[in-house]
Amino acid sequence: MTIALQNDTFLRALLRQPTDYTPVWMMRQAGRYLPEYNATRKQAGSFLKLCKTPSAATEVTLQPLERFPLDAAILFSDILTIPDAMGLGLYFAEGEGPKFERPVRDEAAVAKLVVPDIGAELKYVTDAVAQIRTALKGRVPLIGFSGSPWTLACYMVEGQGSDDYRLVKTMMYQRPDLMHRMLDVTARAVIAYLNAQIEAGAQAVMVFDSWGGVLSAGAYREFSLRYLEQVMAGLKREVDGKRVPAIVFTKGGGLWLEDIVAIGCDAVGLDWTIEMSEARRRVGDKVALQGNLDPNVLFAQPETIRAETAKVLASYGRGHGHIFNLGHGISQFTPPDHAAALVAAVHELSPAYHREGP
Amino acid sequence: MTIALQNDTFLRALLRQPTDYTPVWMMRQAGRYLPEYNATRKQAGSFLKLCKTPSAATEVTLQPLERFPLDAAILFSDILTIPDAMGLGLYFAEGEGPKFERPVRDEAAVAKLVVPDIGAELKYVTDAVAQIRTALKGRVPLIGFSGSPWTLACYMVEGQGSDDYRLVKTMMYQRPDLMHRMLDVTARAVIAYLNAQIEAGAQAVMVFDSWGGVLSAGAYREFSLRYLEQVMAGLKREVDGKRVPAIVFTKGGGLWLEDIVAIGCDAVGLDWTIEMSEARRRVGDKVALQGNLDPNVLFAQPETIRAETAKVLASYGRGHGHIFNLGHGISQFTPPDHAAALVAAVHELSPAYHREGP
Repeated sequence: MTIALQNDTFLRALLRQPTDYTPVWMMRQAGRYLPEYNATRKQAGSFLKLCKTPSAATEVTLQPLERFPLDAAILFSDILTIPDAMGLGLYFAEGEGPKFERPVRDEAAVAKLVVPDIGAELKYVTDAVAQIRTALKGRVPLIGFSGSPWTLACYMVEGQGSDDYRLVKTMMYQRPDLMHRMLDVTARAVIAYLNAQIEAGAQAVMVFDSWGGVLSAGAYREFSLRYLEQVMAGLKREVDGKRVPAIVFTKGGGLWLEDIVAIGCDAVGLDWTIEMSEARRRVGDKVALQGNLDPNVLFAQPETIRAETAKVLASYGRGHGHIFNLGHGISQFTPPDHAAALVAAVHELSPAYHREGP
Repeated sequence: MTIALQNDTFLRALLRQPTDYTPVWMMRQAGRYLPEYNATRKQAGSFLKLCKTPSAATEVTLQPLERFPLDAAILFSDILTIPDAMGLGLYFAEGEGPKFERPVRDEAAVAKLVVPDIGAELKYVTDAVAQIRTALKGRVPLIGFSGSPWTLACYMVEGQGSDDYRLVKTMMYQRPDLMHRMLDVTARAVIAYLNAQIEAGAQAVMVFDSWGGVLSAGAYREFSLRYLEQVMAGLKREVDGKRVPAIVFTKGGGLWLEDIVAIGCDAVGLDWTIEMSEARRRVGDKVALQGNLDPNVLFAQPETIRAETAKVLASYGRGHGHIFNLGHGISQFTPPDHAAALVAAVHELSPAYHREGP
């Protein structure tokens, strides 16, 4: 824990402090597009075993850093560890997404929900955080993460991914009291979970509100943003005199940017539907911005990847407070060389935007 | 054609002319949530046969009007009739969405695309329009429709629906020249198709840009909006001295509202992610606005449906130029009584917003 950070560009950018270039990392940077990841996963036996084995999680977290000069590492884990620890029975059917054996669909099921004992049920996560910190040897900062209360609730009610969010929205409109109770328990669990990650060594945290964007503006404020604000208020934001920055990412939340900024996060993640220049104009100097290249750009040839990267950098413009990222997780079909082209382009093209002078 | 309209509230609202109340219709109002629709479909043998048999299409188009006092009818048809007429071979596998036998994935396939002969290949659609007009006997106006060039291109390249639009975006970023050629042919086909519907009796038209929202802001302008503008410029906008209003609906396009307004449409369709009041403030008096209740509200009890309907009406506020609708097609799981509650609520609650005075 006392090893000095060799590259704190990412943390400085999150706090809108001066940096020499724009730091870059990629959501889901440890993943199926890397052959070495697939080998480790195969060895672990399954995705869940990979998540639940700290040494394996450490190994895959570091893999993308061996290939690309990324400016941050992110804990390798699943977004649904909290509901799993609440007893919902997470499993993965072959070739399908995550599912729960016991979804939460009625008053009795909601009443039974309690904040899990993080130290017992989610020790595999905090152990992984500690091991990754050690293995990183101060190369770059480590990001901890959690799903947002609303996003976790979507999976908890639906029992799996959904096209239309019919079940969770039915509960939300039909029984808002139940939904609020579920979201409150989940928000308290997210706080305990992220604080445990911070205590174990996470130097920044990110909350993924992957499904906030499926709500109406009013419902977003009442059922997602309100609980994101509760999470922000409950986080341990300083460790050893150092700020632990928090990033909030509501996919599809571009219309609600001003509302998101107001909940007390240090940075806002953006998907690719919003122009960086517009986002920056709207948030002013209140927060840093992270994003926002369409991950599908990485299917084009390296020259195009470079040109599209240049557009995002130019759209943010001169000055600090930009963390380059994709607007969503990198696709499993991405050629690793194309990810390399992205990282190289950010490092080559961004210093011009950080220099002093006219 | 010479029968006078008994209820022109919808057309007047589209042109922002005074009306006594807010007109209402529902996207996909003729559909699987209605038992009578399912009976007709079963009789027709398949969804495609239903679309391709004008008498059956007429029957299902009128079914929701028998149940609910809707203010407009919309042609019952499929969004993919144009690519089917281009020879891509549309089919529906049981329990799955639409698919094409011959997707358009390379230069040779793009080169072969031509604007279909609407009078021959899509006569079943214009025949349906004419029969529906006759069957309506002037009760309410009839809306014709088409998919947008970009949305049709998504299906044409992917060959089916997609989660990530990987294939179509790869072509877009890798070979923008091919994508532009495909979009230009498709835009010309959309113009010919909609003009044929207008000549056959459609009194308003709507272009569904269902997948525009998956693009980055810059790509949206270049690959979707530009062709929507081409379509607007090519439409026959007047018949017998009467304006034929055009509605453009980009799902997920709330961030780009000012750009959409500028292409020359009469009305903009909105999904539920944008607050009506904000949309109205941003568009001023340039266009009418159509929307924008989350279709999932219809799973709640009638009191909640009424309360959420009231919120949308209040958010638009006093004055004309609002057409009430859902923010997306009605779900097949909707109880028909709940759709009735929505229509009744709009008709009961909206007159207060249209009265003169303080």
